[in-house]
Amino acid sequence: MDYFKESLNLHRTLKGKIRMSPKMDVRSKDDLSLVYSPGVAEPCRAIHQHPEDVYKYTIKSNTVAIVTDGSAVLGLGDIGALASIPVMEGKAMLFKRFANIDAFPICLDTNDTDKIVETVRLIAPVFGGVNLEDISAPRSFEIEHRLQDLGIPVFHDDQHGTAIVTLAGLLNASKLVGKKMEDLKVVINGAGAAGIAIARLLKAVDNPDSPLATPVKDIIICDSKGILHSGRENLNAAKLEALTFTNEEDRPGSLHDAIRGADVFIGVSVANLLTADDIRTMAKDSIIFAMANPVPEIMPDEAKAGGAAIVGTGRSDLPNQINNVLGFPGIFRGALDARAPRISPNMKLAAARAIADHIRNPDFDRVIPPTLDEQVAWRVADEVRRVAEEEIRAAQEG
Amino acid sequence: MDYFKESLNLHRTLKGKIRMSPKMDVRSKDDLSLVYSPGVAEPCRAIHQHPEDVYKYTIKSNTVAIVTDGSAVLGLGDIGALASIPVMEGKAMLFKRFANIDAFPICLDTNDTDKIVETVRLIAPVFGGVNLEDISAPRSFEIEHRLQDLGIPVFHDDQHGTAIVTLAGLLNASKLVGKKMEDLKVVINGAGAAGIAIARLLKAVDNPDSPLATPVKDIIICDSKGILHSGRENLNAAKLEALTFTNEEDRPGSLHDAIRGADVFIGVSVANLLTADDIRTMAKDSIIFAMANPVPEIMPDEAKAGGAAIVGTGRSDLPNQINNVLGFPGIFRGALDARAPRISPNMKLAAARAIADHIRNPDFDRVIPPTLDEQVAWRVADEVRRVAEEEIRAAQEG
Repeated sequence: MDYFKESLNLHRTLKGKIRMSPKMDVRSKDDLSLVYSPGVAEPCRAIHQHPEDVYKYTIKSNTVAIVTDGSAVLGLGDIGALASIPVMEGKAMLFKRFANIDAFPICLDTNDTDKIVETVRLIAPVFGGVNLEDISAPRSFEIEHRLQDLGIPVFHDDQHGTAIVTLAGLLNASKLVGKKMEDLKVVINGAGAAGIAIARLLKAVDNPDSPLATPVKDIIICDSKGILHSGRENLNAAKLEALTFTNEEDRPGSLHDAIRGADVFIGVSVANLLTADDIRTMAKDSIIFAMANPVPEIMPDEAKAGGAAIVGTGRSDLPNQINNVLGFPGIFRGALDARAPRISPNMKLAAARAIADHIRNPDFDRVIPPTLDEQVAWRVADEVRRVAEEEIRAAQEG
Repeated sequence: MDYFKESLNLHRTLKGKIRMSPKMDVRSKDDLSLVYSPGVAEPCRAIHQHPEDVYKYTIKSNTVAIVTDGSAVLGLGDIGALASIPVMEGKAMLFKRFANIDAFPICLDTNDTDKIVETVRLIAPVFGGVNLEDISAPRSFEIEHRLQDLGIPVFHDDQHGTAIVTLAGLLNASKLVGKKMEDLKVVINGAGAAGIAIARLLKAVDNPDSPLATPVKDIIICDSKGILHSGRENLNAAKLEALTFTNEEDRPGSLHDAIRGADVFIGVSVANLLTADDIRTMAKDSIIFAMANPVPEIMPDEAKAGGAAIVGTGRSDLPNQINNVLGFPGIFRGALDARAPRISPNMKLAAARAIADHIRNPDFDRVIPPTLDEQVAWRVADEVRRVAEEEIRAAQEG
């Protein structure tokens, strides 16, 4: 199937992929008096008196804003708010499909960090959570960071969703090749939102003492100019911060230098960067997660020819698809159900473990559940909710 | 039925009254590849190249934002964004029910005019129209005015919706009592958003030469302190402007002075202001639209006891319900279908005439169609679209 051509036809036929539906029919005057004037005044009054009741009487408890500025959309880059809408509609479909969440696209006509932060604050009342999407780094870091006090979860999926699903895959892959997480030498290629978030989560930077964490000790991040090390000039703030918990030996060099002897390559970069020869320089039974879309950093056949034991990509037509869909629906479901004020580091670890544990007998071509497995999100939701409820209880007691 | 109690129960059971629905199921990997990655890239690219294509491939062509700050909600006043959500959800249901429009509540956590204007601009990409709702005057005037260049219709329903339906009722009522519109002496009580908009539309201030207009010449507006006239102090800008086209004789006095000899009383104010004795001072066969909610300025029985020929209220349990529901769904339907850049004065007149003309044989208890008449919105939409298309053509030719 020519996905591009067919997709264009489909979008034209549907005129957008989502719609708003009433939860009940309005047929009679009585119906009208209950859902609208005069009856509706009563839930309004109740919420005015007890703001927390907004979760009882409105869509807030199940509604998520998908917020973007269209600055880093798929592999398309900065195509702007209008052109990003089809992706955000698609994401809304996935929220519904996998976790029965009502999500709505908020595509902002600005790239200004302050304005994005303020707009999210202003539109927040009707939403129970905010999924930041396809906003370019490093603005995405700042935007997410500044919104953590909003009282509802604000979660940049390109960072954490990718990181969580990557960690899930790596938990199973490392077991299969008989290596411990803490002993892995990991190279992450790509120092944008996803790459740095993956490093952070693998290292458990934000919750080193969590019983859920099994941190990787040795991580090197590369960008298009090679290894991030202290001798590099003009590193942005996010990359500088990443240096504080990666590349402890402060090695310089190229991506090729970095992967020599490494156990794991995680690519969140661009197509066709590596060859079988490159893989041959890695440690035995290497693990390759080549997630560039739509063409991975190296194709599975070639990686295996170079000695890789396990290869994952972002593609649905290849084994081990590392796809955010395994993460965000269940994570938000759990967070909404617990009414968590944010997605904490432990909630992220719990989500990764739930995804990994969902595969009873992992094998080399199945380190991660299939993207369309309907049970994953609900399992993730259970674990995320449990951790969130514990944290809420602890905060109340403390 | 106890609408208040029942409504509270209903809202609690439903947990909000609207949901987001996908327009197609996502069952297979192919489905996923079409609605999301990789296929979705194609409509994104198309829109990036031709921004107008956003109407072809996304929900924009059928999606309206219901924007409020919760500052003037129903009769409840300034209850804030959270507490306004049930009303906005109800409104979204009505958009769907009567005109198949997908509307979504945007409840803003600010009363700042500049911030509201900017936020609407920033979130506009995904919307084909903006319904401003329950924002207090005079800010609502300024907000609407400043957003007229947005390229999509921005329409403050509390003003124009009410005005349009009132005009529709008056067109039929005046015929029934054998008086010409231009000869009517009209008193409007309430100088907020609705009152001033009604005066503007009845007088055809914004399009005096339109073939659709049959302007009323003599209009007096009262607020809680009596008649608006040049001797009044501390009038806000909107009231001062209203003085330029009302009360030509610059009469001072109270509401009671104003209605003496008047043909029409239009109330958008508060309950129980008038008695049968007051109505007796009006001209013969007076027309009373007492639209205060939920209790009108005077009840129909008492008004008729005072000699009123025709009485309308805002209530669904009384004859002649003057309800915005007759207006906004069809108006937006027509505007969206024509892709009108704004709701022009002539589109408003066309809507009023369509509503009035929908009643083939008006009588004293039926000057306006019943609120639940499903055909009204489509008739309104046809007329509004026709006028909008003419205006678009004229603008292109001019």
